[in-house]
Amino acid sequence: MPHEKWMKEALKMAEKGWGNTNPNPLVGAVITKEDQLISKGYHEYAGGPHAEINALKKAGDASAGSTMYVTLEPCSHYGKTPPCAEAIIKAGVEKVIIAAGDPNEKVAGKGEEMLRKAGIEVITGVMEKEARKQNEIFMHYITEKKPYLIAKAAMSLDGKIATKQGHSQWITGEEARNHAHWVRQRVSAILVGVNTVIADNPQLTVRLPLDKVNQPLRVVLDSKGNIPLTSTLVSTAKEIKTMVATTDQMPVDLEKKLLLEGVEVVRFPHKQGQVDIQSLIDYFASKEVDSVLVEGGSRVMASFISEKMINKLLWYIAPKIIGGNKAPGPIGGEGILHMKEALPITEMETIQLGEDWLMTGYMKGAEKCLPE
Amino acid sequence: MPHEKWMKEALKMAEKGWGNTNPNPLVGAVITKEDQLISKGYHEYAGGPHAEINALKKAGDASAGSTMYVTLEPCSHYGKTPPCAEAIIKAGVEKVIIAAGDPNEKVAGKGEEMLRKAGIEVITGVMEKEARKQNEIFMHYITEKKPYLIAKAAMSLDGKIATKQGHSQWITGEEARNHAHWVRQRVSAILVGVNTVIADNPQLTVRLPLDKVNQPLRVVLDSKGNIPLTSTLVSTAKEIKTMVATTDQMPVDLEKKLLLEGVEVVRFPHKQGQVDIQSLIDYFASKEVDSVLVEGGSRVMASFISEKMINKLLWYIAPKIIGGNKAPGPIGGEGILHMKEALPITEMETIQLGEDWLMTGYMKGAEKCLPE
Repeated sequence: MPHEKWMKEALKMAEKGWGNTNPNPLVGAVITKEDQLISKGYHEYAGGPHAEINALKKAGDASAGSTMYVTLEPCSHYGKTPPCAEAIIKAGVEKVIIAAGDPNEKVAGKGEEMLRKAGIEVITGVMEKEARKQNEIFMHYITEKKPYLIAKAAMSLDGKIATKQGHSQWITGEEARNHAHWVRQRVSAILVGVNTVIADNPQLTVRLPLDKVNQPLRVVLDSKGNIPLTSTLVSTAKEIKTMVATTDQMPVDLEKKLLLEGVEVVRFPHKQGQVDIQSLIDYFASKEVDSVLVEGGSRVMASFISEKMINKLLWYIAPKIIGGNKAPGPIGGEGILHMKEALPITEMETIQLGEDWLMTGYMKGAEKCLPE
Repeated sequence: MPHEKWMKEALKMAEKGWGNTNPNPLVGAVITKEDQLISKGYHEYAGGPHAEINALKKAGDASAGSTMYVTLEPCSHYGKTPPCAEAIIKAGVEKVIIAAGDPNEKVAGKGEEMLRKAGIEVITGVMEKEARKQNEIFMHYITEKKPYLIAKAAMSLDGKIATKQGHSQWITGEEARNHAHWVRQRVSAILVGVNTVIADNPQLTVRLPLDKVNQPLRVVLDSKGNIPLTSTLVSTAKEIKTMVATTDQMPVDLEKKLLLEGVEVVRFPHKQGQVDIQSLIDYFASKEVDSVLVEGGSRVMASFISEKMINKLLWYIAPKIIGGNKAPGPIGGEGILHMKEALPITEMETIQLGEDWLMTGYMKGAEKCLPE
């Protein structure tokens, strides 16, 4: 189908904004005439011109009488930039093909309506599923007003994330680790438990060969205040935003030392001695954190999973056997008693990354992002 | 490529013998003339006519001047049936395309030689890798003179084979379970540890909608003699061959009771109180057991893996979360200490089975089956 051919191109363009548009969506636009390409554009960075405007600029006068493919409904309101629908009308575009509608209730359908009223032919829903999936973080954040939570684990084929001694570097190969950095680059925050900081002393940074890298906020869940002052996270907190989520159990003395190192310390209500996760999520929502990558360890993962907070799973599986009853799996805690209580994962899919495989799937809450 | 087209057809024919040819190989043959199909045949059951003979019979006089595609080198020796190479020559076949050579040292290359001497054009190595993979059990058994060991596990995405209470029915869906029955149908023996018998009381039978089902020998590893006399395995031992592999630790009294129920009891030397696995494998080899499916639980799996006895892994992964530090993973035991000691899996691949995924891979020993 010709519509799908060009919409695929628009989706590819949208992808180029990966990591630079948050909390805005990824959007791509392609302008054609008589099934020939005129121009392409995408939303490059938050606050910058929208995809439609970039494509129209490149097309110039050629946009008169053209067809535009755009992955998200053109906006109809004056924000940081004038409405795209207006610009499309002015440019004389004849036909607009839209993948997904705007999830923002305030504006949903209005851009489409504005175009139709100006006599432009509008077709909607072309590759809608793909477009919504590409913006699953944005779609969730706008409709739920809460961050999209992604759980990430790297395990051996026998379900171990470390040896019984806690050794875990490295389970997966370079390609899988690069993919994980690519995911980090997109999210607003990365979260780990303090035990992971103690065991692995991670950097939790995006390490990609890009001109500009977005370092997400690094969050450590540390209810009692056990984070080592000598950890890499603390010692680099002045360069990369770092936050410790704790409770009133953290000694004030430690809090002061962390503040001096540039670490933000936020105290939350506790639930059985642990940071109340619901309060933490609400805090993120209030700070425009659209997405959080939960990277473990097993205890933190178990808390988020049992609270049904996880939207998506990213599971890297390595062709290795670790073995051992005492070697940790990705999800600790108490677990279920009967198979019928097992938490279902939907739309589980897999892709190969070098020698490793990535399995992805969704948990409760994620379905809301997909069209009925 | 035309050769590959017909060889694919021959491989498909070979597959039809699945489960009925052991310890013989799967073999398929296709006869064509001027790139048109004349006839197809396969090795249907151990002791029955070979694939080439079945195809020649169907072709009749049309085999004169034809081309034959056969997945394994035609035999040249008098066994239960006269040599296929002779029949091919007599039938006037002009050209023979062979996928894989015979792994049996005594006859390797002789069938090919016999054909060439008779003036037949012979091409070898067409889809050799696929043909060897299809007969990986046979190839291993003939060259190593030991059974091919396949480890099978069904786990949740978080690497659990049961809940912390030991509940495991069912982790995977119907399609995955059917696939596992299909694998059982091919092997000579299925092996589990006595703890699995106690926890799950399994039947370990092939349950497939076929006219004729081959029930493999059921083997329980029970070093001390803990198998319940009330278990399904014991109570059905008169209908389906069942063996308990034990040591001198099993009370003679229990042995007598098991024998009365029709269970074969074999005592093996022990290694730290457990049946010595090497001795067990040697025993299987002496009994023409070409393949063993090791179905767990975690302790048995750990023994076989750490003794480096496993050739292939069949890992069914269900889109479910079980969780829990105490819920068992597929491989128990002590495990490794450092990541560099992790046991590598080669050629890890994956296929979807309903909502589940099957990951397959090979461990040490399996590479020998693939051409260099």
